[in-house]
Amino acid sequence: MKVLAFDIFGTTVDWRTGVAEQVADIAVRHGVELDAGRFTDEWRDRYLPSMGRVNRGERDWAYLDTLHRETLDELLVARNLDGLFDEETRWELVRTWHRLPAWPDAVEGLTRIRARYPVAALSNGGFALMTGLIKAAGLPFDCILSAELAKAYKPDPRPYRTTAALLDVPPEEVLMVACHNWDLDGAQAAGLRTAFVERPREKGPHRTADRSTPGRDHSVASFTDLATILDC
Amino acid sequence: MKVLAFDIFGTTVDWRTGVAEQVADIAVRHGVELDAGRFTDEWRDRYLPSMGRVNRGERDWAYLDTLHRETLDELLVARNLDGLFDEETRWELVRTWHRLPAWPDAVEGLTRIRARYPVAALSNGGFALMTGLIKAAGLPFDCILSAELAKAYKPDPRPYRTTAALLDVPPEEVLMVACHNWDLDGAQAAGLRTAFVERPREKGPHRTADRSTPGRDHSVASFTDLATILDC
Repeated sequence: MKVLAFDIFGTTVDWRTGVAEQVADIAVRHGVELDAGRFTDEWRDRYLPSMGRVNRGERDWAYLDTLHRETLDELLVARNLDGLFDEETRWELVRTWHRLPAWPDAVEGLTRIRARYPVAALSNGGFALMTGLIKAAGLPFDCILSAELAKAYKPDPRPYRTTAALLDVPPEEVLMVACHNWDLDGAQAAGLRTAFVERPREKGPHRTADRSTPGRDHSVASFTDLATILDC
Repeated sequence: MKVLAFDIFGTTVDWRTGVAEQVADIAVRHGVELDAGRFTDEWRDRYLPSMGRVNRGERDWAYLDTLHRETLDELLVARNLDGLFDEETRWELVRTWHRLPAWPDAVEGLTRIRARYPVAALSNGGFALMTGLIKAAGLPFDCILSAELAKAYKPDPRPYRTTAALLDVPPEEVLMVACHNWDLDGAQAAGLRTAFVERPREKGPHRTADRSTPGRDHSVASFTDLATILDC
């Protein structure tokens, strides 16, 4: 193993808390009554299906912000909230995904691992979105990679293979770190090694987070545990 | 201006000193008499022409390491040194471009600028090469971009436009920082803003470095001067 690639939403940052808090603020400001946590859950439910349409070629490449905007519009109709948020506010809601808090162990774990290995971010978030999010959260990555560079979304094999190609190593020398089995299954299918990291609160209080499944190279409770296992 | 993109070879790191010192070491180890400085100058002379052939479509995209290997082989023939370095040593020579010292003002200047703006590396060096070089030199960039992502080399407009597109800003909101007029001319032609930074020792003792030409948005003596001009 020569380099590590880290998933971001859920694995490195707490999207559910970060988005729900910002959605709640925006709703209050517009006098809209909303269970921001449930709203965020339902928005996220539309995440994988929207990317699947791109991966299957049913539509051209679209930036994550575009997909978030489309799924937001659908959700507002489905919840009878369609008249309540104007154009500007809808984009403000989309941008809640641009500023999210890191999990408490993320900076320390990454710092220790980075002292020994190159560490890359590999997200379905766009390149600009990731650059801003990682800077704001103070996450010490060596480089940022994005599904945007492959014009295909994880778990399609293309972003994983593009990662290995850009880092100039064979796929089996990349360790993909994520808290989602769909992501690690995709990485494994593309020939990468995998580390499952438990994020029990990733989906908030109403949903059950993924548990590790057999066949992963590593299974850990935090980035600092991963650092220890890797002798970092 | 929203983001800054920094050239690397010559602008941020001292390629001439770094490559010449490593070439001298390798030559001594192989018992080859060589003026490593002149050898490095002549190798670098073949840099822009080799990339021009890619940009004009006379050959398919080739990674910078591949171009460096080809120009090395040509240079060894031209200097009657062809029999003296084996395959492994030639790749070792190519990799001298992967580990280069930062100019003394680079880390401090970047750190100050980064506190206010996103800072990107934009090099003709490959993505993996840049990731390793920037990590080894301890340069605090927010993200790494490479001509490799556009499959065209600067000064072709494509890498500059790809930079703006990936950072999700119009070209005129990117400030390109470089010590080469050919790079800044390319950036300007692609619609970017430009900052010339003087690097008088960039080409070593036998060559004259570029001087600033009229029409640049900024012209500075160091990255720390640039930080000051930008109120960072």
